[in-house]
Formats: sequence, structure tokens, C-alpha cells
Amino acid sequence: MKKVLAFDIGGTKIAYAVIDKKGNFTNEIIKVTTPKTSAGIFELLKTVIKGFEDEVDGVAIATAGAINNDNNKIISHVGNLPEKYNELDFTSLTSKPILLENDANAAGWAEFKLGAAKGTRNAVILTLGTGVGSGIIVDGKLLKGKSGSAGEMHMRFGFGHERKCTCGLWDCLETYVSGNALTTDAKVYISPEATSYDVIKGLKENNQKARAAFDHWQEYLENALVMMGNLFDPEVIVLSGSMAQFVEYDRLNKQANDDILTQPFKLKPAKFENNAGMLGVALLLLERLN
Amino acid sequence: MKKVLAFDIGGTKIAYAVIDKKGNFTNEIIKVTTPKTSAGIFELLKTVIKGFEDEVDGVAIATAGAINNDNNKIISHVGNLPEKYNELDFTSLTSKPILLENDANAAGWAEFKLGAAKGTRNAVILTLGTGVGSGIIVDGKLLKGKSGSAGEMHMRFGFGHERKCTCGLWDCLETYVSGNALTTDAKVYISPEATSYDVIKGLKENNQKARAAFDHWQEYLENALVMMGNLFDPEVIVLSGSMAQFVEYDRLNKQANDDILTQPFKLKPAKFENNAGMLGVALLLLERLN
Repeated sequence: MKKVLAFDIGGTKIAYAVIDKKGNFTNEIIKVTTPKTSAGIFELLKTVIKGFEDEVDGVAIATAGAINNDNNKIISHVGNLPEKYNELDFTSLTSKPILLENDANAAGWAEFKLGAAKGTRNAVILTLGTGVGSGIIVDGKLLKGKSGSAGEMHMRFGFGHERKCTCGLWDCLETYVSGNALTTDAKVYISPEATSYDVIKGLKENNQKARAAFDHWQEYLENALVMMGNLFDPEVIVLSGSMAQFVEYDRLNKQANDDILTQPFKLKPAKFENNAGMLGVALLLLERLN
Repeated sequence: MKKVLAFDIGGTKIAYAVIDKKGNFTNEIIKVTTPKTSAGIFELLKTVIKGFEDEVDGVAIATAGAINNDNNKIISHVGNLPEKYNELDFTSLTSKPILLENDANAAGWAEFKLGAAKGTRNAVILTLGTGVGSGIIVDGKLLKGKSGSAGEMHMRFGFGHERKCTCGLWDCLETYVSGNALTTDAKVYISPEATSYDVIKGLKENNQKARAAFDHWQEYLENALVMMGNLFDPEVIVLSGSMAQFVEYDRLNKQANDDILTQPFKLKPAKFENNAGMLGVALLLLERLN
């Protein structure tokens, strides 16, 4: 059975595994800290690929950043990754077939094919991690746009110049709905040293300041759901990424559906959690190899 | 050649005309003031349809509001139209084939098939009228979602509870980018009695207050373009509706493309202006009749 070596390159960690046509991970997932330079990332990928090259049919890479599918390069600067990451020539890493996909697009495809959005035709998968990404399924296909980089979740959520975004603008949705955003709320509602971890810890201890920080963060998330519900009229919105486990699904599901103009959607947690990116890009490449 | 009777039902006016397969308007477009009650709208439509029924092959209606294509009904309340408009049973108007489509979707389809977005595969057509609507083309097809009502442009542009939206929420994009929004800016920058007409008039006279009001309005529009560029990665964004003629295209084209993370799009004025809704829904119905 055909299988590929799949990577997920994030701002904090790089994970990799071998994945077969049925979506099975045939070895344990390895996770390493993301090197601090783009050259370091490239060397790491090269070494790992060399080690697996004889046993796989291709290399699939899920990564932060908008992808140009015409040349497998990253479009423009990616906030959470080192400088010049967008200059890396990924195709030179191997002579085997190689496919890059935005990590959130890849995660969306995994949830659509085998996960929480399986059986639907229109779905939005939001990845709430260090940043915020989306994989959007329109009529059974991944929303790509003209160059493959659609689904970038950078839109203004305010005009007060309150939160600087990694994209260079101010007050993007990402600055209110990501893991980093919860840390921003922690500093406002708890203390200047507090982080998202303190909010999550405080929630379990019924700490009122932590609750206020979390409610503020979740109010913005609810508005992100309303936006995506109104724009895409999906059957399901799936939340993925490290922050997804903390969301109050029943509450947000009701609130957001009360506020949309379109027909109700169902809010669900992702099935594959942090492995969705690797799985999705592997499935995309394996579909092409057939 | 097959032809249909096409309507465009807006909050201010109802327009109608007969349109053939090639997109030709075979009679003069008639415009009447929108009746103040839903029953009045229904009676008007019925009378006009009766008058044309013998010479057309169907009835195509572009209207404000999200449409459920399964039953040709409007989903939920439509801010700019009378109460109970969403309860009207449009299918009972005629025994001929009838198709309803959201006016902005219809306008988008007209621009995509025969207008400013012709020849593209991914396009966003924003209609800036009393409210704001969108017709979004994804990979050559109209973005519809699960029930046909995708493309509703209601997303929060701020959280200060500054502008009440017709959808019931606060500070939606529509309250910043519509014709009504320019009137709001006119009241802030010019005088409490001023409207959008005073802004447009003042611009021609180089009035500084009018310029400030317009710049504020256009800044929000630029951010709407960034949002749609990042989300859909379109080849073109087309501006339609009554406000589109006042936009500074070169300036906004440059600013928005400087701010997006995706590849550049082209900003263009619509070809069909206010007749795009009628034309688009007519083309959609005529495609089905073939």
C-alpha cells in the first residue's frame, strides 16, 4: 500500500510520521522543537527525509503560512516562523513527489475525509493554535482560491489599534481568538505576568478573574463562528488545534446559531487534534499519487 | 429564444424586465417604489407576472435576504424589507418555473458570466447599496453553502456597540461599508442632518469635512477587501451597487493588495451596475430551463 512521509511544521514544534492510504500512522509520531533559523529547519527536514526516503512514495508537508501550489513555496512572511522561511525551496528536498499545504487547510481536509466533518459537503475547520487558521470545504472541495492560499484568517475585529497582529496589521481576528490572544486576556484580567496556562488552570479552580479572561476570549470566538456561519453556511464548524479542547461547545453552539442569518450549523471538536495537519496533507498527496 | 421575467426586489425600489438567454433586456426596465407592506409587495408581483405570463418561460426574482433554495423562501427577517416578508410563498405567484436568488448572489453571477469578472474562476462581487451583500464565485461556481444562503456579509467590525445592524447584532461590516454607513459618517464629520448625498456633493466641491467622512468610510471598505482577499484569494473583487461609483479604485486596489497575505487581486467596478441582480437571476433560471 502506498505511504508518504508527512511533516507538520509549526512555530513551536515540527512533527513527522509515515502515513498510509487508509490514514494509518505506521510509526510513532516524532516531535522536535522547531529550529530557530530557516536554514536549520531545512537541514532538519533534509536529514529526516533521507532517513525515510527508501520506504515512502512521497513527502507531504503541512506548514504555517499561505502556500503557492504552483511552486510549493510559501507566500510572504510567516509571523510564527523564522525570517526567510518563505524563501526555502522545498521541492529541492527530495526527488520523490512532494506536496506542501497550509497546515489549517490540511487539518480541514483530514477532518472532512475521516474526522468530525465526514459526510458533509460544506464545512469550516478552524485551527486555534499559536495563531488561527482555517480549512474550508465548499461543496466537497478544499477552498483554495486562485493560487492555493485562500482561508487566511486575517480580518479586522476592531479599529482601536489595540493588538498588533503577526501579519503586520492591527486587531486581526487572530489577535483575539488564538492561544496568544488568551495570554493577552490573561494579562488584562489576571496579572501582567499571567499566560493562557493561568487562565486554564484558574478555570478549573473556579477563579473569577480566569473566568472573565476566558469569557472575553470566547466571546470573540463566538463572533468568529457567526462570521464563518454567515459567509459559508456550513453544515458543521469544527474546532481544531491546542485551544479547541477548552471551548464550551454547547454554549457557543447555541449562541452562535442564535446570531447567524443562515441556517443552523453544528459546532464540533476535531477528531484528530494535533495530528490533523500531517494526516490531511498525507491524504491529499496520496490521492494525487493514485 | 427562451426568456424570463426578472425582478429585483430591494428595500427602496422594485425593478423588472424581460431578459433572454443571451442576457439581452428585451423591454425597458420598469422601476416602482417598494410597497410598505409584504402583502403589497406580493400583490404587485402577482399583477406584473399576470401581465407578462404569456410571453415568458419563467419568473426569476433577485431579492434582499438569504434564500433557502429548497423551498424558494426567505430565511429569517430581512432588515430593509417589511415585516413578514420572509413568510411570503413566492412559488404560489405563478405556475411557470420560478427561481429566487439573493440579489447580491445574482449580481455576482451576472458579473461572473458576462461582466467585470468574466474569464475568472474565483471572484468576489460586493454589492454596496442600502446594505452590503456579496456574490462569491469559488472555482467557477456560486458559493451557496448547505441551504443556499452563504455570502451573508454580517461579521463584527468592532466591539464598541457603536452601530446597530439590521441583522440585530452590533457593528457588523454592513454598518460601516453600506450607503447607510456613509450617512452615519456624514452625521459625525459634517452635521447631524447630513446624509451620504452631502458627502458625495462635498467631495466634488473639495469640502474637507466631506473628504474626512468619505475617507473614514473608504478605510472600512479597504479592510473589507483585505478580509475577502485573504479568505477567498480571488482573481478579482468587483464592486457593485449604488455606492460603487464613488470608490477610488486605484487607491483602494493598491492599499488592499499591500495588506493581504495572499496573491494580488484586481479591484474593478461592476459592468452592470444596478441591473446586475435581475440579469444574474435570469441567467441562473435560463441555465436551468435548458
